[in-house]
Amino acid sequence: MYRVLNNDLVREYVDKTPKLRSLLLNDDESASLLEVSEIGDGNLNFVYIVKNGDKSLVIKQAVPYLRCVGEEYPLSRIRMTFEIEALKKEKEICPQFVPDIYHSSHEMSLVAMQNLNRHKILRGEMIKRKVFPKLAKHIAIFLADTLFYTSDFYLTSKEKKELVKKFINIELCKITEDFIFTHPYEENETNSYSPKLDMSVVKNFRQSKEIKVAIAKLRYKFMTEAQALLHGDLHTGSIMLNEEETFVIDPEFAFYGPMGFDVGIYLANLAMSYISCDKDEHSYKEYVESLIKDTWEIFSKRFKENMINHEKEVKSLQWDYPNGLKHFEAFCDDFIASMFDDSVGFMACEMFRRSVGLAKVADIADIKDEEKRAKKEKNILECAGVLVTSKYDSIDEVIKEIKKYDR
Amino acid sequence: MYRVLNNDLVREYVDKTPKLRSLLLNDDESASLLEVSEIGDGNLNFVYIVKNGDKSLVIKQAVPYLRCVGEEYPLSRIRMTFEIEALKKEKEICPQFVPDIYHSSHEMSLVAMQNLNRHKILRGEMIKRKVFPKLAKHIAIFLADTLFYTSDFYLTSKEKKELVKKFINIELCKITEDFIFTHPYEENETNSYSPKLDMSVVKNFRQSKEIKVAIAKLRYKFMTEAQALLHGDLHTGSIMLNEEETFVIDPEFAFYGPMGFDVGIYLANLAMSYISCDKDEHSYKEYVESLIKDTWEIFSKRFKENMINHEKEVKSLQWDYPNGLKHFEAFCDDFIASMFDDSVGFMACEMFRRSVGLAKVADIADIKDEEKRAKKEKNILECAGVLVTSKYDSIDEVIKEIKKYDR
Repeated sequence: MYRVLNNDLVREYVDKTPKLRSLLLNDDESASLLEVSEIGDGNLNFVYIVKNGDKSLVIKQAVPYLRCVGEEYPLSRIRMTFEIEALKKEKEICPQFVPDIYHSSHEMSLVAMQNLNRHKILRGEMIKRKVFPKLAKHIAIFLADTLFYTSDFYLTSKEKKELVKKFINIELCKITEDFIFTHPYEENETNSYSPKLDMSVVKNFRQSKEIKVAIAKLRYKFMTEAQALLHGDLHTGSIMLNEEETFVIDPEFAFYGPMGFDVGIYLANLAMSYISCDKDEHSYKEYVESLIKDTWEIFSKRFKENMINHEKEVKSLQWDYPNGLKHFEAFCDDFIASMFDDSVGFMACEMFRRSVGLAKVADIADIKDEEKRAKKEKNILECAGVLVTSKYDSIDEVIKEIKKYDR
Repeated sequence: MYRVLNNDLVREYVDKTPKLRSLLLNDDESASLLEVSEIGDGNLNFVYIVKNGDKSLVIKQAVPYLRCVGEEYPLSRIRMTFEIEALKKEKEICPQFVPDIYHSSHEMSLVAMQNLNRHKILRGEMIKRKVFPKLAKHIAIFLADTLFYTSDFYLTSKEKKELVKKFINIELCKITEDFIFTHPYEENETNSYSPKLDMSVVKNFRQSKEIKVAIAKLRYKFMTEAQALLHGDLHTGSIMLNEEETFVIDPEFAFYGPMGFDVGIYLANLAMSYISCDKDEHSYKEYVESLIKDTWEIFSKRFKENMINHEKEVKSLQWDYPNGLKHFEAFCDDFIASMFDDSVGFMACEMFRRSVGLAKVADIADIKDEEKRAKKEKNILECAGVLVTSKYDSIDEVIKEIKKYDR
């Protein structure tokens, strides 16, 4: 039966769960040896580190409310079921980018997994201006593979539809629909503004026909296009890494949605890191620029290779004629181009909502100088407005646009 | 427990089912009075008419195979569950266009409903060149209302997602994916060709880059865009009517898909009726032309009204500013324009598959003169090829295009 854990109960839970006990304790050791600490930086859940000397693991438990708001914002524990199932699916596809899962319990809404103690959260590291040479490649592969291998391009129609059904994630999709696609574009009480923000910029996008129609279309796309199993919340706080390894965590928002959503959310967080930089941080800006460019380029190249290689393997009758494979390639290019448009659109949504919505990004929100912070936010909002209403042919053009708002 | 009915067992079933017994028999009457006949024109199911004097009803039962092919083509009875649930949903939204449902049993895979004995199948009536003055309006309203009231434009995010889950219709979607979107465009053994068909036309579209890419995109759209609860098979054989009343039947293909699919399939069947006409059947061609035009125009007008009226009622914060409603209207127009493009695309798919795929339309297939039939098929195929690779701004332009293939 479900009960909310605390440090003592975590110790007891490990003691009673053979798989976890064996990972942390020798047979003759007592569970009292276990050191438990709650690291509490999650918005939604409780996260415990359980240690015995060199051995350690993480236990993450969902409580029936939104942790960052409190018990008055109920949120069903079922989100942990989505997180567990998504972690398993992602682990199957990209074992190198997903922590090891040791144990999970839908009943207790908890998962026990690898303690990433040699890794740090990407957002914090970017704020410290740390460089990770393998990051672009790792995330590009994670995106290309998780999206491709859960899509109709790879799975049978039946397998894919069964996954769509399994991942109907009503509550967490609603949070995204509200907090990314609705509230930031209206006078909603959940929004928050930095003290010096130029509110005329906010009013401008909230009453712009082009922006409002574009946002409504993207929201509808999010709600209707079941293309692939998305991570659903792939910002730089959902990535833990070091120079060698990169892990994607926290997929409780997972559901079948438009592929460009994952790509766009991630690129938006890079773009906001870029805009957060000071005028003179040339080399870091160059690095972030290369991250944006490389992520898209490696991602799109690999996604296309996945499509082509799979087609060469299955040799479907449909493309089996002299120029068939060339024609299939044209279809791939067309699909990737439309995924690119979607990505840029969703990128803009994330930039809007992180500037005026409930949840901010520390890259900007932690800027102490209020004038400076407000100026960065204005740049992000204006950049988002242009991105969401324009059409770009390449990631270079998008980067060029973003660079205009480094001012 | 499930068992396959026959005439005697139908009588017994009615006798044991109080609701049905009371509709057909007085308390003192014996079930032996019931006349049962199987009308067997279904591709998939058994359909019984049960009568006692003036009183009558229809019982439709699914068997665990595809009736038109035989027991060697298994198809699970679960399709009747989709039919029952879709009939109920459509009846709730459009009571005037859906037969009364008296009784249903998922266990027995059967539904008992109103006997439409004063109504005939639209396809047969069109072949006899009968005119129905209310048809365009009735089907336009059926489409606009079933699509709107099951979409994210009307339902809450939760209600809609629960319906998506309920209507994951794996087997019947697979039939459409194969027989509408795949086999007709490849050398598949399930295809069939009329004896005098010009096979160079077939080869042309099967190896055309533009057509193949366009079809692949439409197939992907069908598989991923969960916009509304579709009928899923809205051809002129799924409509029963007379001068006053119109009923839509047989929704076992129901699932959440792109709205343009229902619209396109229906318009394609009208277009094929048009092309089936002889040179001198001027007035019938004019009538069919008006059906195409009026269906789209009444449909799109009503769909937009549904959107606007709902918005005026809920007054969402998002559009609550001086020009908000005008901007929302621009979003509606944009959505309807993209639904129009989808409809024309799906229309072409139906025209291709009805000409070279497994299932034909009697409008063309029953033409005795083989030369003439083959010429009509060639016209349909060439028309479909142009429709699927062009962009039209209005239904008038589409009609103009179709008329070029009345040759």
